[in-house]
Amino acid sequence: MTLPATMQALVTREGGYANNPGPHIDALSDWCELRELPVPEPEEGQVIVRVALASVNPSDLHYVKGSYGQPRIAGGPAGFEGTGEVVAGKGKAAEGLVGARVAFVAPLGGAWAEYVALDHSIVIPLRPDLLEEDAAAQIVNPLTAMAMFDLVREAKAEAFVATAAASQLGKLLAGLARDHGIPMIALVRRESQLALLEEKGAAEALQTTAPGFAEAFAGAAKRLKPRVLLDAVADQVSADVFFAMPNRARWVVYGQLDAEGPRLPQIGTLIFTGKRIEGFWLTEWMRAASSEKRVGVVQEVQARFAEGRWRTDVTATLGLGDALAGLAKALETPDGKVMIRPGA
Amino acid sequence: MTLPATMQALVTREGGYANNPGPHIDALSDWCELRELPVPEPEEGQVIVRVALASVNPSDLHYVKGSYGQPRIAGGPAGFEGTGEVVAGKGKAAEGLVGARVAFVAPLGGAWAEYVALDHSIVIPLRPDLLEEDAAAQIVNPLTAMAMFDLVREAKAEAFVATAAASQLGKLLAGLARDHGIPMIALVRRESQLALLEEKGAAEALQTTAPGFAEAFAGAAKRLKPRVLLDAVADQVSADVFFAMPNRARWVVYGQLDAEGPRLPQIGTLIFTGKRIEGFWLTEWMRAASSEKRVGVVQEVQARFAEGRWRTDVTATLGLGDALAGLAKALETPDGKVMIRPGA
Repeated sequence: MTLPATMQALVTREGGYANNPGPHIDALSDWCELRELPVPEPEEGQVIVRVALASVNPSDLHYVKGSYGQPRIAGGPAGFEGTGEVVAGKGKAAEGLVGARVAFVAPLGGAWAEYVALDHSIVIPLRPDLLEEDAAAQIVNPLTAMAMFDLVREAKAEAFVATAAASQLGKLLAGLARDHGIPMIALVRRESQLALLEEKGAAEALQTTAPGFAEAFAGAAKRLKPRVLLDAVADQVSADVFFAMPNRARWVVYGQLDAEGPRLPQIGTLIFTGKRIEGFWLTEWMRAASSEKRVGVVQEVQARFAEGRWRTDVTATLGLGDALAGLAKALETPDGKVMIRPGA
Repeated sequence: MTLPATMQALVTREGGYANNPGPHIDALSDWCELRELPVPEPEEGQVIVRVALASVNPSDLHYVKGSYGQPRIAGGPAGFEGTGEVVAGKGKAAEGLVGARVAFVAPLGGAWAEYVALDHSIVIPLRPDLLEEDAAAQIVNPLTAMAMFDLVREAKAEAFVATAAASQLGKLLAGLARDHGIPMIALVRRESQLALLEEKGAAEALQTTAPGFAEAFAGAAKRLKPRVLLDAVADQVSADVFFAMPNRARWVVYGQLDAEGPRLPQIGTLIFTGKRIEGFWLTEWMRAASSEKRVGVVQEVQARFAEGRWRTDVTATLGLGDALAGLAKALETPDGKVMIRPGA
């Protein structure tokens, strides 16, 4: 198969880190531009994937703004996660994958482009029964959900709390919670999301913006005794929820939707309560996990999607050019994922 | 020996918890009053100690205000730590201690009284060469210093940071740091405390209120790579210091001198840095430590004082009645401990 010489890609304009907290963007064009780049040539051990569909995760937005855990590559394609077909490879193992449909996370970005070069060992061949949208969002959210749920189980928590629970990740967690019988208290911003979360598996869903939320949460915490808070928001509500949780609770921050950050007047109560505050980063978890654990989790993820126990809700799908102007608006629709289709 | 029927004691006026953050008091008389109480009778296994000298710790002030980790006993004597002579006992082991000079922590309070009843197993017989002021402040601060230094060592920290380092506890930590070759960065509020801390053993002393503190700390952190912050203050300076520390740093809050608490706009960086925030409470550490470890630590503490490697700096000694009006003022003098002498 002969590949074209050039391709379209959404590239970050600036390199390195910058102090732009939060994943919120006013327009993707503030951070990225559409460029014509040479289609990458595979190096030894690499495959070239023609990207069919890429997902948009908060980590992508942190990255293009310079506030992710790794520096931007100026002029390099953005986008960490996607699915597509292997169209070329160099070396025996890589060539053997040509023709395979795969899911991938590109460690240095590159999913928001028509083609991406990846080490053959990190692409994940897909079961034929997986839907394209499930394949495109198969790793970042599901693996994060699995790994954080693992943390809940290892902490022997009787129950746990998840913020921004109407997110794709929150819904995945709710399903795990139900299937494993560990009640999840789902915190959402909109009343309309309450029924959705209970349907997805949350034992209890509470609206943080409703009057009486603090009392409602205190009641649920007393009944269910949640000892882990999985938090994508990191705002004052998260902090207040954490301090209202029972002794020995852990506040696990895996995202920060709020740029201002909470005030912690009760931080002194950590002294007596055995509570702690920490972060969770999938990249670090992957580094620390054994390869057996990683493979096992990947298989479990595919099985859950294939069997319909998990599902990726897509709210919009944009071409590369449309994303520059339209991504910010598309992200305003709650409760699902926005996809980018590079070949569109 | 015949004991008198009644005694003087400083008792807490109210019981239970209250939301009065921080150890600061305007006057002890806001929280305590002087009462005549029956001298306690020993129950089986208990000794009666005639209190010679009691120390005033932040935990005492948190307790009388209702913001400590255990509820106040209304009308019960306050004061956790002191030294004195065993003057009575019930049961063989307790009677055998009569005449002994001991140090103690009274778990339910009682050191700010002429006599206190204690389980015989928790009083610590003293080496004859220990000074009275070292005996009166031998447990709370020294054991906390030892236990937290242990945490620094177990974390394999190359260096550590201590806030409010001109406190008695901070000075004990500085000595441990020097003796064990783990550099301590001492943070103090007053310029006059800088030389003191370096003399006590700090590798570096920095004034948090000086212009250019942030840059000075960043330089020290880069050079020494501290990964543990032992923090008695829990204010914005502590938070900023923590976020300026290297990856995988731990912020260990063991006191809260600041009632307002910090704002944490950078809490999202926990995701990528592997840092965490937790508390330290000596009572919990004691519960979790093996009895061998506890005994070993107690012996090491006495030896350090007896050999002059540690010293208790006393800034004032008050009688029970004088403390009601005078304690708050006496506590304003920095860099040392205030003592209460019940028999005075």
